[in-house]
Amino acid sequence: MPTALQDMLGLELPIIQAPMAGAQGSALAIAVCRAGALGSLPCAMLGLDAIRQELKAIQAATDRPYNVNFFCHTQPPPCDDAQALWRQALAPYHAELGIDPPNPGAGPSRKPFDAEAASALEAFKPPVVSFHFGLPAPELLERVRRWGARVLSSATTVEEAQWLQERGVDAIIAQGLEAGGHRGMFLTDNLHSQMGTFALLPQIVKAVKVPVIAAGGIADAQTVAAALSLGAAAVQIGTTYLLCPEAGTSAVHRQALQSPAARLSALTNVYSGRPARGIVNRPMRELGPMSPLAPPFPLATAALSALRSKAESQGSGDFSPLWAGQNVSGCREISATLLTRQLAANCT
Amino acid sequence: MPTALQDMLGLELPIIQAPMAGAQGSALAIAVCRAGALGSLPCAMLGLDAIRQELKAIQAATDRPYNVNFFCHTQPPPCDDAQALWRQALAPYHAELGIDPPNPGAGPSRKPFDAEAASALEAFKPPVVSFHFGLPAPELLERVRRWGARVLSSATTVEEAQWLQERGVDAIIAQGLEAGGHRGMFLTDNLHSQMGTFALLPQIVKAVKVPVIAAGGIADAQTVAAALSLGAAAVQIGTTYLLCPEAGTSAVHRQALQSPAARLSALTNVYSGRPARGIVNRPMRELGPMSPLAPPFPLATAALSALRSKAESQGSGDFSPLWAGQNVSGCREISATLLTRQLAANCT
Repeated sequence: MPTALQDMLGLELPIIQAPMAGAQGSALAIAVCRAGALGSLPCAMLGLDAIRQELKAIQAATDRPYNVNFFCHTQPPPCDDAQALWRQALAPYHAELGIDPPNPGAGPSRKPFDAEAASALEAFKPPVVSFHFGLPAPELLERVRRWGARVLSSATTVEEAQWLQERGVDAIIAQGLEAGGHRGMFLTDNLHSQMGTFALLPQIVKAVKVPVIAAGGIADAQTVAAALSLGAAAVQIGTTYLLCPEAGTSAVHRQALQSPAARLSALTNVYSGRPARGIVNRPMRELGPMSPLAPPFPLATAALSALRSKAESQGSGDFSPLWAGQNVSGCREISATLLTRQLAANCT
Repeated sequence: MPTALQDMLGLELPIIQAPMAGAQGSALAIAVCRAGALGSLPCAMLGLDAIRQELKAIQAATDRPYNVNFFCHTQPPPCDDAQALWRQALAPYHAELGIDPPNPGAGPSRKPFDAEAASALEAFKPPVVSFHFGLPAPELLERVRRWGARVLSSATTVEEAQWLQERGVDAIIAQGLEAGGHRGMFLTDNLHSQMGTFALLPQIVKAVKVPVIAAGGIADAQTVAAALSLGAAAVQIGTTYLLCPEAGTSAVHRQALQSPAARLSALTNVYSGRPARGIVNRPMRELGPMSPLAPPFPLATAALSALRSKAESQGSGDFSPLWAGQNVSGCREISATLLTRQLAANCT
């Protein structure tokens, strides 16, 4: 029986493919839409032209509903001192890899949702828009609503869920601590407030009236069904899609996901400045995983980019963010359409 | 339909009351046994005479199976320097509360399972013995098995579950990160290895052949059912019993559990030297929650005991370990027998 959320979003299956900026584009979203679930296009690391191209690709490939995802952090002011300290912390790596330290002027790699992005979207009217790190300013949110989009956002605590409900979101993604990638936390920066899915999900379900989408640790048909039994109206799944051929997951990332290293992930701020869960690798081990030296999000990224490129060109993921959740056991090198249907096997 | 584990342990319900040293004794165990679940007596903080008295009380009150629980850490050598540093870190608190700093000779408050404890148990032949922090030495474990006891122990990683299975435990408690009290971790001290129940439970179920008991975040009939649907043969529930009249939970602990403060817990080593989840309070906030100054388990406890007593005598839980999991929403001031039946409402 479809949930009210499925009806609202027009979904055959109660499954949302989690937007994974940097690891996928329209191809994965399309493959998931074709299975009857909600494919997502992560826009946080895309320029406006790239967003338009990707949306054209999705609309050309499918008539089904899809989701576009944006970050909505506040862009920090330039902080040259913090950046200089960060480059200094990374200097031994630059020396080791024999590359020049990065240009201090290198810009951030992630822009928050803004008026330009809203204008770009208006031409496409994506049926679902999801946000991470809270919500954009009211006037921006109003523009999104004007074309009829349903709005989702992530909560990592009961307080965040209540905050989102008060601002009228259509559904709330309860992001358990198991989830890979960036924590959506926005009312607190206290990592101790972050709860496992098993504790977070039912508490958010009790606290709000809007539908709740479970995220974190969902990796197969059994965990999908368990999340629904805990009151979720749908699930959002990321990590499990990372080995699909339609994902843009890098070679070193794919390798790490299939290695024993994938058993140990941690929340780290070294790759962006905000806590995100990834497989533990060198800078996480040696500088963090949470480093007081990392400049504010998203300014930590630029200084690592040359290290990442050089290492990846040598087949090493030592300096790449290897985002992953705490359960990689569901990753399969099969089409995302088929994987989605397998994940939905217990949804009837 | 009873699970194989219920048959093995002789349980009507697939529920184990988690042993909570310092917060309960035979009264809670008896009340839970009377509901058809497995009541547990935590022995880690009891002397031999107290253990005997409690076992007499249980055997006089019920014919049902019950569990006795022991820690099996390695007792650290005396470490006067570390203790002195720790007392120094606590000195401002002693000054503030106007009490003498503790006697350096004050002993640890928790003994590992040993030959004397095994001898005390032999007279009672408890049907189930569970361990925390791994397993005791093979000859001690052999003594336990000799009277026919079933042996359980906690795993916080897949590796720990496999280690326990190799050593022949009858069932494994998968302790998710949401759980209150001491982490059972024993093959690693890396907190990043600790997973939420939603990720840990299905991965342990896949990795071992013995029955798996789910712990962490289980607070009502719905979460019990979800844990069973994830492959658990039973659940172990602690926090949810802490407000029952049969529990020995202190007044300040009961108060904290019913306050908004209970929404924020953390893993801390300040109360014992090993990471344990409790509601965040002063020494956790001001010295930790994980402090490099805390001496090895269980030596951190003694130096805080005078602070705790003085504060509690003034109605304050500022210096008390307020053990709790990440979901206190199921706590009820009702009899543990009734609470157990409510928790089992969806088990048929």
